[in-house]
Amino acid sequence: MPKLNVVKIGGGIIERPLELELFLKDFAAMEGPKILVHGGGRKATQWAEKMEIPVQMHQGRRITDEATLPLIVAVYAGLINKTIVSQLQAFNCNAIGLSGADGNSISAKKRPINPIDFGWVGDIEKVNPQIFNDLIEKGYAPVCCALSHDNNGQLLNTNADTIAAEIAKAMSADFTSILNFCFELNGVLRDIKDPSSVIEKITPALLKELTEKEIISEGMLPKLHNAFAAIAQGVSEVAIGSTKMINTNVPYTSIKQQ
Amino acid sequence: MPKLNVVKIGGGIIERPLELELFLKDFAAMEGPKILVHGGGRKATQWAEKMEIPVQMHQGRRITDEATLPLIVAVYAGLINKTIVSQLQAFNCNAIGLSGADGNSISAKKRPINPIDFGWVGDIEKVNPQIFNDLIEKGYAPVCCALSHDNNGQLLNTNADTIAAEIAKAMSADFTSILNFCFELNGVLRDIKDPSSVIEKITPALLKELTEKEIISEGMLPKLHNAFAAIAQGVSEVAIGSTKMINTNVPYTSIKQQ
Repeated sequence: MPKLNVVKIGGGIIERPLELELFLKDFAAMEGPKILVHGGGRKATQWAEKMEIPVQMHQGRRITDEATLPLIVAVYAGLINKTIVSQLQAFNCNAIGLSGADGNSISAKKRPINPIDFGWVGDIEKVNPQIFNDLIEKGYAPVCCALSHDNNGQLLNTNADTIAAEIAKAMSADFTSILNFCFELNGVLRDIKDPSSVIEKITPALLKELTEKEIISEGMLPKLHNAFAAIAQGVSEVAIGSTKMINTNVPYTSIKQQ
Repeated sequence: MPKLNVVKIGGGIIERPLELELFLKDFAAMEGPKILVHGGGRKATQWAEKMEIPVQMHQGRRITDEATLPLIVAVYAGLINKTIVSQLQAFNCNAIGLSGADGNSISAKKRPINPIDFGWVGDIEKVNPQIFNDLIEKGYAPVCCALSHDNNGQLLNTNADTIAAEIAKAMSADFTSILNFCFELNGVLRDIKDPSSVIEKITPALLKELTEKEIISEGMLPKLHNAFAAIAQGVSEVAIGSTKMINTNVPYTSIKQQ
């Protein structure tokens, strides 16, 4: 099966225009079919503050109330997505931006209001591989923002890591699907203070050992559990590292099918 | 050649959610290949006011300065475009939203700063039929907002009427291309106070006569001249009327190839 790279970038890089541009240049140069998924960054929060819309968080996660959703949709699917798409076009990558409503790419259900009412937040029900296959077949690179829809006219704010993982899983029927999480660190580190201490390969046995020895930070654990879940559902490899890993030979953390 | 409908809706209808929903239901039910082009409405201006970004106009046209462009991109390509796309999906129309950067659909050049500096405004250089053909072939309905790009990473605010006309022209190589301008009136009226006085067919000779007799308002004249220009460049018919004309048998103004 042909290889497909799904690359997720976080909100941090989106806030650093020079780093974003360098990354997009590398992404444009990546060979073969590819899909970019981007997070939101702090722009929506900044705009909410300017417009005096209260920003509500619960355990670090945004509550998307009635007044906040239009801002999220505007900033994620408009400002950030189109900034990325236009820059990719400048690097000769024929990008096309998508929300979960476009081409019915990502269907979701509004999260139940108990125990916490997160507002207009969606939990993914289905990624539709058709639109991605159609675009890839014609040579386009889909660029997905962190929005899904409920097939009833409602847009929903949705975690970008989850969107990337669900796309990689859904595409694994037709592709050798590789899920790349690009973030601030060079990978999963043995010593958080030493950027060169990247653990290059994590197996279930090693994860157990590292967890017991408390070498892996609490923030990293859900990412790793999601990575193993993706592998169990057909994704060929999950790569966790810096944006440089997509086009240079730097170390990163790899989780593979056994 | 197969028929293609390019339908442009103005900013006014976008501000009336119920009317917009009724229109989108009709658009979803339209048979055959179709492309929707939408204007911006006043949302961007409202947001600019809330964020204390001064709104500058020249003869009724917006000046898109450095602070205004991100708002325009967010509201046009994000909020409005995705609201429309998600509603069309609810009506079983497989819509996909585009700015001029997506799929490199619309290339433009920044307007010269003399005699008036309109800021980040683009004059269209080329509509790329490929992306529209690719999407239509796969059964998608493209939904275009009023943004183009310069192929060098810059997004540009661009008149939606012009975008619709240029798309209809570019697609006329492969389709019998019909350009529909939906607006507040039922068509070009003999008597602006009488909604039933629609002039159903305008020829160049009739346009000359109506202009000399000052029956056609000054605001309508550029629309009509653009319509005749589109016909001269391959568009099969330009229809000017209410949103109802796309799916019911109401009168409208038609300009056709002779």
